[in-house]
Amino acid sequence: MSQLTTDPAAFLQWIKQQIPLTAAMQLQQLTFDGRQLRITAPLAPNVNDKGTGFGGSLASIATLAGWALTTLYLRHQGLECDVVIADSHLRYLAPVNGDFEARVSLPLGDESEQLLQRMQQRGRGRLELQVEILCNGELCLSLDGRYVAMRRADSQGA
Amino acid sequence: MSQLTTDPAAFLQWIKQQIPLTAAMQLQQLTFDGRQLRITAPLAPNVNDKGTGFGGSLASIATLAGWALTTLYLRHQGLECDVVIADSHLRYLAPVNGDFEARVSLPLGDESEQLLQRMQQRGRGRLELQVEILCNGELCLSLDGRYVAMRRADSQGA
Repeated sequence: MSQLTTDPAAFLQWIKQQIPLTAAMQLQQLTFDGRQLRITAPLAPNVNDKGTGFGGSLASIATLAGWALTTLYLRHQGLECDVVIADSHLRYLAPVNGDFEARVSLPLGDESEQLLQRMQQRGRGRLELQVEILCNGELCLSLDGRYVAMRRADSQGA
Repeated sequence: MSQLTTDPAAFLQWIKQQIPLTAAMQLQQLTFDGRQLRITAPLAPNVNDKGTGFGGSLASIATLAGWALTTLYLRHQGLECDVVIADSHLRYLAPVNGDFEARVSLPLGDESEQLLQRMQQRGRGRLELQVEILCNGELCLSLDGRYVAMRRADSQGA
């Protein structure tokens, strides 16, 4: 099943099939090196009345990037989970004037290992992530998000 | 020009023309009684992989509702402004299991009058709003947002 893939391109294709708004946003490329995840998107389908990036599109793609990182990280560990966002704080720092990228990395501390321990012990855990949206090298939006993962009953684990 | 209308249906039509993602979200109805604004949307185009409301769609529509309230409120006072969101805090409280509504009201205090004063004095002001998303009577998401309005150079004022 493509939804269980860890291949970034197949995962993006599955996202666009399952979440119609992500197809409308014309998400272009998703990359994941095991620590950092990036999603690129064009401006045109995500534009607002002022010709810059629509705040709702930016919020959507940033929210999705953190969700995708959490999902793929757990899947790399053999854990198939439902991941949801619990809360987020967004700062709109500069207008997006062109095609843009959402970028998010696993925390530098041991939070991601703690998440794995909690998943094994309780089947549930959380991860706090900072997502950034960049356009032409400029930081345009930051999202501090708290994501909650729940292990699926049919997940076998690593 | 339809973009200067205060008629809610014409304003929604203009939004969907200007912001393609709002057409993809199939926003249905926008109402505004001078204090409270509501926007309704169907679940189907805003669904996620779990069959519930996609967090990005909910964030988008909540963000848009506060922007629309600020824009229409100022327009009712004869002020044509560019309105942007500066930051927001979102809490995802319950899954959205059906068609849903975003709801936002002007603050009960004198913040909206203060905004008008600042617009007249400085051509710039801000408004803090709390947007709620409800589904089947249940509060599913809250957004605390800070919106900034900048008077357009060609705006004549009230």
